[in-house]
Amino acid sequence: MYRKGDRTMIAELVFVGTEILLGNIVNTNGAFLAEKCAELGLSCYYQTVVGDNEERMKETLKQAISRSDIVIVCGGLGPTPDDLTKEVAAQVMGMELQEDLHTKERIEEYFRNSQWKEIPDSNWKQALVPKGALVLDNSNGTAPGLVLEEKKKSMILLPGPPNEMIPLFMEQVIPYLGKKQPEVIYSKMVKLAGIGESQVAERIQDLIEKQTNPTLATYAKTGEVHLRITAKAKNKKAAKKLLKPIVKELKARFGNAIYTTKENITLEDAVVKLLRKRKWKVTTAESCTGGLLAGRLINAAGASKVIQQGYITYSNKAKRNLLGVEKITLEQYTAVSDQVVYEMAEGGAKAANADVCIAITGLAGPDGGSEAIPVGTVYIGCCLHGAVKVEQYQFKGNRQKIRDYAVVRALNLLRLCILEESE
Amino acid sequence: MYRKGDRTMIAELVFVGTEILLGNIVNTNGAFLAEKCAELGLSCYYQTVVGDNEERMKETLKQAISRSDIVIVCGGLGPTPDDLTKEVAAQVMGMELQEDLHTKERIEEYFRNSQWKEIPDSNWKQALVPKGALVLDNSNGTAPGLVLEEKKKSMILLPGPPNEMIPLFMEQVIPYLGKKQPEVIYSKMVKLAGIGESQVAERIQDLIEKQTNPTLATYAKTGEVHLRITAKAKNKKAAKKLLKPIVKELKARFGNAIYTTKENITLEDAVVKLLRKRKWKVTTAESCTGGLLAGRLINAAGASKVIQQGYITYSNKAKRNLLGVEKITLEQYTAVSDQVVYEMAEGGAKAANADVCIAITGLAGPDGGSEAIPVGTVYIGCCLHGAVKVEQYQFKGNRQKIRDYAVVRALNLLRLCILEESE
Repeated sequence: MYRKGDRTMIAELVFVGTEILLGNIVNTNGAFLAEKCAELGLSCYYQTVVGDNEERMKETLKQAISRSDIVIVCGGLGPTPDDLTKEVAAQVMGMELQEDLHTKERIEEYFRNSQWKEIPDSNWKQALVPKGALVLDNSNGTAPGLVLEEKKKSMILLPGPPNEMIPLFMEQVIPYLGKKQPEVIYSKMVKLAGIGESQVAERIQDLIEKQTNPTLATYAKTGEVHLRITAKAKNKKAAKKLLKPIVKELKARFGNAIYTTKENITLEDAVVKLLRKRKWKVTTAESCTGGLLAGRLINAAGASKVIQQGYITYSNKAKRNLLGVEKITLEQYTAVSDQVVYEMAEGGAKAANADVCIAITGLAGPDGGSEAIPVGTVYIGCCLHGAVKVEQYQFKGNRQKIRDYAVVRALNLLRLCILEESE
Repeated sequence: MYRKGDRTMIAELVFVGTEILLGNIVNTNGAFLAEKCAELGLSCYYQTVVGDNEERMKETLKQAISRSDIVIVCGGLGPTPDDLTKEVAAQVMGMELQEDLHTKERIEEYFRNSQWKEIPDSNWKQALVPKGALVLDNSNGTAPGLVLEEKKKSMILLPGPPNEMIPLFMEQVIPYLGKKQPEVIYSKMVKLAGIGESQVAERIQDLIEKQTNPTLATYAKTGEVHLRITAKAKNKKAAKKLLKPIVKELKARFGNAIYTTKENITLEDAVVKLLRKRKWKVTTAESCTGGLLAGRLINAAGASKVIQQGYITYSNKAKRNLLGVEKITLEQYTAVSDQVVYEMAEGGAKAANADVCIAITGLAGPDGGSEAIPVGTVYIGCCLHGAVKVEQYQFKGNRQKIRDYAVVRALNLLRLCILEESE
């Protein structure tokens, strides 16, 4: 059992849902809750998925609460007779169900504001709450979250839909767990692009080895590496103070490879922000990625301020007509070449009257590869105020993977060109 | 214990990996293996994730094999000392490890063909195999799959990386499990677009209720519904015969809403196939989706035969310059209107000299919504040989979701327009 300051608390995750057992859905809640528990400094040794079956759920919850301090149970709080999580959890924790007036009122209010108006009979079941449980209001659905406590152990019940579970967890479960923790856990994310995970790991090996507080962890994303720095301290201010020198050290070691130190900023957000600051317009000229690069850019907040148009030029004819690539260049060097991407970038900037054009041409496969130009060969060109920079890449993986990598590398080349011109 | 014809076999999935417990990766292997087990007619009651820890792994595997006929263990077969799955599984199944000459030779061959040439000492560990185990050759890595059998129970060990695990499972585990099954399980996928899951479910309620063999299951994907029909029979031919009338019945009920009855055909594949058959050229004119529609089309096999270019026209100016949308139309009706999407589709087809142009304009949010044009309003237009069809949609969800739905609806409108003109 957990005593304050004694040792790390042990958490365990249980997911209830036949749709996970049948493989109808990927359990993304699993990765979300696991990452959050790790960030909170909880040790997590098991995740279990079990169906809506009373006997098996009871066995699973009993085992979980016997070996862990905190059990987070996700799913099975719906209004149908299939949904048994609350009933079984109450049994395991030795509690009885009773109507909770506050929850009943919230359900009434939820339906008043919905398109249905009338409340289905089955939903009243959701107003039943284990006696003594802590009720966590759910702003996005009718099933409240519940915390069942017994002898310093906690069982936390959360609804399964991510759009209900995630806000509930962030807004109410984290503060609850924070109070149970002897120390505050605070973390910061440093995001890098254009550098491989093993390279990053090598260059911070010493930090990883010598650091126990804060700790450093690397996460590989497509074409990116994210570094999470996590500090434990008596309060948030003290934790932030611990993080500061590490962030500074990472900035000194990685420089421009770091595109943000903010959790919710994406690579395209960072690029659009740089462009907005300079009031520059960008355009895109894409062959093998066929619009995915522009699609990513336009996903960023404020994109409409910096991108007006983009070109998808999949055929040679389109490269000539829309971007003004010379016929002879295409004939002499083929469409997948540094010469062609050079002319695409230059021509795109001119056609769109933009400050900068980022162009991609490559061979995403599966067919068409040769010894000279194997599948995965991608050229990326960036024309900024007339100066063109071209890079060649050799990506591995299937068609989708090659295109995804090309888009990330293009966003990053664009970012670096902007930074270099501003120096 | 399982006896032939006695009852359904029970399978259980165990995933070994600290990176899943820490939330560094989403356990996509879980959904893959769960879906495959369901298709094979195996009942699956539990999935467990456990770390690379001897004691906890032993406890988990013992419990799993005691309550299930088949335990599939995924991960922890690598060459490092952390990787313990094989050692622990052999212990639990009462087997000793010994060097397997065949596997040793395969490892040598793997490295001969790789860029490394020299074999790290640690990799020899992967040539150790539990005595009496069935070895499943891994074409994409050095860790073979292993089947450990004891008293009609099987423990199947598979490598964790999906690009190694999936081919191994499809090519070797399915035939192995097939032999253990008294009956053959055979299934077919019917994919629909432009119709909601509840509508589909309502219209096949009778089939779902009365059918026990084959069975029907619905899966909701973004903007699509997939129906899986699964038959059990003595052999594949008999199973196929059972499926046939159901597929026929579904075709009669849903008509053109079905875009394929093939497992590996996507909506964009189906559209590109229709265009190729007619030797028609398509182009795209995108505002809020900013290239994602063209990106999907270009993902289809053979897309280069039907798409040469596409337009990303995010600003009003670009809509005018590239597509010839009239200034007065934009001023009078605003960019998010049926009139503008009409002119985008018409102008795009003309500019690209294409048979058909599919155009999207909409408000993906999060800002900019009004009472007249709320966030999620999307107009899609299709101009085919001069005839324009326009549809209006109101999508729910965040920016990403709204754009994803718009792309699927656009692909489907394009598909239906092609089919209608051909009638």
